[in-house]
Amino acid sequence: MKKTLRLRLWILILSFSCTLPLAAQRRIYHLPDLDGRVTLKCDLHLHTVFSDGHVWPTVRVEEAWRDGLDAIAITDHIEYLPHKAYIPVDHNAAWKIAENVAREKNILLIQGAEITRKMPPGHFNALFISDAARLDQPEFLDVIKEAIGQKAFILWNHPGWKAQEPDGIPKLYDIHHQLLDKGWLHGIEFYNDVEYYPLVLDFCTRHNLAVLGNSDAHGVISEGYLKAPGDHRPMTLVFARERTRESLREALFKGETLVWFGEMLAGRETLAREFFRNGITVAAPFHENDRHAFVEITNHTEIPWLLVNGPAGAPGALTLPARAITRVLLPKTFTGPLLYDVKNIMTGETTVLQVVL
Amino acid sequence: MKKTLRLRLWILILSFSCTLPLAAQRRIYHLPDLDGRVTLKCDLHLHTVFSDGHVWPTVRVEEAWRDGLDAIAITDHIEYLPHKAYIPVDHNAAWKIAENVAREKNILLIQGAEITRKMPPGHFNALFISDAARLDQPEFLDVIKEAIGQKAFILWNHPGWKAQEPDGIPKLYDIHHQLLDKGWLHGIEFYNDVEYYPLVLDFCTRHNLAVLGNSDAHGVISEGYLKAPGDHRPMTLVFARERTRESLREALFKGETLVWFGEMLAGRETLAREFFRNGITVAAPFHENDRHAFVEITNHTEIPWLLVNGPAGAPGALTLPARAITRVLLPKTFTGPLLYDVKNIMTGETTVLQVVL
Amino acid sequence: MKKTLRLRLWILILSFSCTLPLAAQRRIYHLPDLDGRVTLKCDLHLHTVFSDGHVWPTVRVEEAWRDGLDAIAITDHIEYLPHKAYIPVDHNAAWKIAENVAREKNILLIQGAEITRKMPPGHFNALFISDAARLDQPEFLDVIKEAIGQKAFILWNHPGWKAQEPDGIPKLYDIHHQLLDKGWLHGIEFYNDVEYYPLVLDFCTRHNLAVLGNSDAHGVISEGYLKAPGDHRPMTLVFARERTRESLREALFKGETLVWFGEMLAGRETLAREFFRNGITVAAPFHENDRHAFVEITNHTEIPWLLVNGPAGAPGALTLPARAITRVLLPKTFTGPLLYDVKNIMTGETTVLQVVL
Amino acid sequence: MKKTLRLRLWILILSFSCTLPLAAQRRIYHLPDLDGRVTLKCDLHLHTVFSDGHVWPTVRVEEAWRDGLDAIAITDHIEYLPHKAYIPVDHNAAWKIAENVAREKNILLIQGAEITRKMPPGHFNALFISDAARLDQPEFLDVIKEAIGQKAFILWNHPGWKAQEPDGIPKLYDIHHQLLDKGWLHGIEFYNDVEYYPLVLDFCTRHNLAVLGNSDAHGVISEGYLKAPGDHRPMTLVFARERTRESLREALFKGETLVWFGEMLAGRETLAREFFRNGITVAAPFHENDRHAFVEITNHTEIPWLLVNGPAGAPGALTLPARAITRVLLPKTFTGPLLYDVKNIMTGETTVLQVVL
Repeated sequence: MKKTLRLRLWILILSFSCTLPLAAQRRIYHLPDLDGRVTLKCDLHLHTVFSDGHVWPTVRVEEAWRDGLDAIAITDHIEYLPHKAYIPVDHNAAWKIAENVAREKNILLIQGAEITRKMPPGHFNALFISDAARLDQPEFLDVIKEAIGQKAFILWNHPGWKAQEPDGIPKLYDIHHQLLDKGWLHGIEFYNDVEYYPLVLDFCTRHNLAVLGNSDAHGVISEGYLKAPGDHRPMTLVFARERTRESLREALFKGETLVWFGEMLAGRETLAREFFRNGITVAAPFHENDRHAFVEITNHTEIPWLLVNGPAGAPGALTLPARAITRVLLPKTFTGPLLYDVKNIMTGETTVLQVVL
Repeated sequence: MKKTLRLRLWILILSFSCTLPLAAQRRIYHLPDLDGRVTLKCDLHLHTVFSDGHVWPTVRVEEAWRDGLDAIAITDHIEYLPHKAYIPVDHNAAWKIAENVAREKNILLIQGAEITRKMPPGHFNALFISDAARLDQPEFLDVIKEAIGQKAFILWNHPGWKAQEPDGIPKLYDIHHQLLDKGWLHGIEFYNDVEYYPLVLDFCTRHNLAVLGNSDAHGVISEGYLKAPGDHRPMTLVFARERTRESLREALFKGETLVWFGEMLAGRETLAREFFRNGITVAAPFHENDRHAFVEITNHTEIPWLLVNGPAGAPGALTLPARAITRVLLPKTFTGPLLYDVKNIMTGETTVLQVVL
Repeated sequence: MKKTLRLRLWILILSFSCTLPLAAQRRIYHLPDLDGRVTLKCDLHLHTVFSDGHVWPTVRVEEAWRDGLDAIAITDHIEYLPHKAYIPVDHNAAWKIAENVAREKNILLIQGAEITRKMPPGHFNALFISDAARLDQPEFLDVIKEAIGQKAFILWNHPGWKAQEPDGIPKLYDIHHQLLDKGWLHGIEFYNDVEYYPLVLDFCTRHNLAVLGNSDAHGVISEGYLKAPGDHRPMTLVFARERTRESLREALFKGETLVWFGEMLAGRETLAREFFRNGITVAAPFHENDRHAFVEITNHTEIPWLLVNGPAGAPGALTLPARAITRVLLPKTFTGPLLYDVKNIMTGETTVLQVVL
Repeated sequence: MKKTLRLRLWILILSFSCTLPLAAQRRIYHLPDLDGRVTLKCDLHLHTVFSDGHVWPTVRVEEAWRDGLDAIAITDHIEYLPHKAYIPVDHNAAWKIAENVAREKNILLIQGAEITRKMPPGHFNALFISDAARLDQPEFLDVIKEAIGQKAFILWNHPGWKAQEPDGIPKLYDIHHQLLDKGWLHGIEFYNDVEYYPLVLDFCTRHNLAVLGNSDAHGVISEGYLKAPGDHRPMTLVFARERTRESLREALFKGETLVWFGEMLAGRETLAREFFRNGITVAAPFHENDRHAFVEITNHTEIPWLLVNGPAGAPGALTLPARAITRVLLPKTFTGPLLYDVKNIMTGETTVLQVVL
């Protein structure tokens, strides 16, 4: 006895519903914290009309707020200024324009600049600087020295960018070794926009650097990423004591980061393991029959996990969709530990995270 | 210096992403628990091909699993069996067919039946019964007596259904008072499919009954609701000590329920208040300027809240979108409590919940 | 005998599928042409960083291309330049920057400017100008005279904007009558962003002006509209002999326009009638039974039609969803013409289009 | 000068918008017709509760109507009846139940049955039969003979199904050659659900059979496919003189079909070529600069085309998204024909369609 729809009721209900996308609204990401630290979602490489970007600086803050980020850096090029026929050179302008909006939107805004050179050395972000104008100098090492004097965090950007490294493989040239020797290099981009460079994971492990993932956006973020997998830009997850600029800076210098883009996570094995463990629940079996125990595994995070290379006698592969519960049938003949490779957590150029459920 | 897209990389990333909708996946609802109780999401009114529905009984369990429900009741009509030329009468068939699948899917399956009479008395679900066949009797009160003998929870369905109550307004007839007097009526549907009956809230308060909201689905759930507001079917939220059939039953008899559909919540004021309070965080101001304090309010639930009739000097209305953070500018001249009406939480025919943030 | 999914195949298929949103892709709108004329989709009111907008001028062209528009006008304010501390005044800059990109993207780019005065007279767009700098003069009528000298089309923007007309109702002041008398006013905005002014339809009919609908976008188009109804910005549909700037201009001066936003269409009755008729097919009945003839009505357009006030004996209301086929059961006792009001086609302040199916 | 949103207006507009998904609405596919023939969208392999499916027969008709199909066949198993403890055997029941609904929904309903044997011979659909009960006989060839006596079209289903052909590769056994010799086999499934069998294209070419693609759905169509690429089930496109059961039958016997699923099209080269050509427009260049001519290519169909192996001097690959316009920059030095392989139109086990734009 099917009831006819009372359409008028629907209209009432729906009219409320539909107005919501219009409201200013900040996304919540479900990403676990680590023990004693909060997970800050950061994009530390962004451009505006003040170099070769297409948006006004305040747009970067508003995007970050809607996208649920905690911190961003605006890093316009020092040396590449194609709009200068219309906009006079002012390396600090974007920062000055965006600063107050950031304060009102509760976004940690990091002042930065992109030092833009041929490879080697390539492009570098100086983050946490206080005066970008003083980075406008001819000699690369002088610029870095000035940035270091401003207590900057120095980040090597897209080291395998094909326009500068035709084979796509990042290489440590002499100049990079000089930076390393002086302690003037603190992080490398693993993800830059949609590109990633597996070898960066090994560089970072060997030289104790932070792994970063950034959008390097020139255009509108929502047009570039929001139809992409997981609907988010590449980001650096920084594990900080608290949600302040100072804690963020400290955690970056300690290399306490993972990068997340699409459905891939990458970074230091110990951090990745804790992150994975804190985002998953494996419940006791809720049912058994002659052959199987029935178990529910909840993935609380935004990131689906693809487990492969399972042990003999257990499911060979398990997909744990993001923010969903997966039901697993375990053969009763299986007794060993549930050891899997997490195919989408990279810990080195050729290694992925191994976990026991 | 915009990089060209490396499309091949995208393909790799995306191929993983896109396979996920195919995987069997159970939705997680973000709805708060009450203190000491878990919130069970229930749909206690469903049909199958064994009366006038269009799906096999196991479909109801699979839908419930995907939709993230905890409990369902299959309640085929006793008296209305339009498929009987093809399917011989067997009032317990749907239950027998679905039972084992429910166990394997961790769904609490409640055996039920819909007693289907003209108004008065109208339609009633008997829930938690053990033998539906014994409800196939001519006299209405005999049927209810039999159900009560089976320890049933008796639910009055869609009391304002226009096919039976042309003005759409539920009425307590003599027969309903008889049921109330005998203690043979335990709950009433406030929501049935897309219809709701505000007066039911008052009936339930006066007679100490449970308020319920159910889909009464005959067709496929995902086709009926998943483009609707909030993307979910009407449901009864039952606040039970634990996730078992016995606790669910006990909580229903105690009337510990709210109903949720679209973006409306309804039920007893004390429960609604605790539910609202447990799902919201109002943080300390993160910034101040001359005129305003800046505050973030997080709505952790799936339900947007529409706050209206705010106090003088504060924002008159606040929309708190579901699972999002809203930024509120409070005038510094405002000092009083932030008292609002929650327009979409009904507590009586003409009343809504009042809250202080 | 259900087959197991061969997930690997899916991955292959899907990887191709998912890359497409990334590809540069221009939307096709399904909107009918009128007899002998093409329907040009236009947004003739847009801002950039060169007045108080947030995007670089080329962004407006790229948005238009993706959104499937034929023509846009960039109309930065002459008098309101909040970015001038960073960007020196150059009223023609946006045009110079966007011009070549427009040519390469096949977008008809109209040079314009917004003359920005208190009410009366309010804000006006001068379209099809050749030198915006010469509109930077103190006296309003001098500015309009200069624009007319440049052969401009003069458009009165958002005449009921509450910041200038607190009751929201547009009024023809003395200055507007002066413009009308001189032939210096050619169109009025009915839709500006999400606001619309029903009275504009009567003004335009009485004074033989074009009705326009524009976004007046300052921010990113895709963030402002693409979750909105029908997923498109407000636009002026111009019925031109061909897709050239000259034909567009000619049709605007003749008032051959309709405006479309959300699911509302508005404008001159004769144009609306032809537009409606060219976008619908009513087929012969495909089936009959004792009581009804079964008919399919196809709405080929992007705009759902809500037909109301049907004739006695026929369905009182018909919703014809966009780009879909609707099945209608006509009682066999009904013989008269199927006369309906199209609730969402406004032809005057208080009138809607009447159609016979 | 940004205007504040007038939310009330939005509510009015949106409330109309949002009710539409609820309305019964039939999808329109943009697929070209061939010269003198209409393209009928068919799914000729479907199950119901009368064998091992999960839905009532009328559901199949309603799904087809919403999905924009022209014709379906219900093909319950003759030999596999797992519900028979509850539903007595009646091989014609599904047809009798669905027939009238099909007429009222303008769906061409084909009576069918699935003859369900071990491999060889495997599973076969008999389509256009008049009495399925007479196919319930022990000897396979007797069954086919009976079906042929009823003028059936005989279709070999999922010939490479791994449950029956562990290597996934279809093979013509002696029994299949017998059928071919007698003229008792008329088509083979290339797509069955998400599986496809490239070799089927060669079998069909060699033996002059129709290529088919069907869902073989047991569950709910919208849950199985509507998140899949292109949002549609696998279907057989039949090129018939007119939209009648008789024309459909005639065209099937002539092998005038293509199959479409995801973003793959497959079938006879001549049909595929005409289909591709009728769905695409390559316009004259709209702009030129020193190096390039700028051309717009419109793909009017629902299927994106992936063109690869382009000629030297022209773009090596072109993606033409579905129902969208793509802008192509042709080097002026290029003069030859634009010859491409269409990667997603298969014409044989190892061949794809070659086209000249």
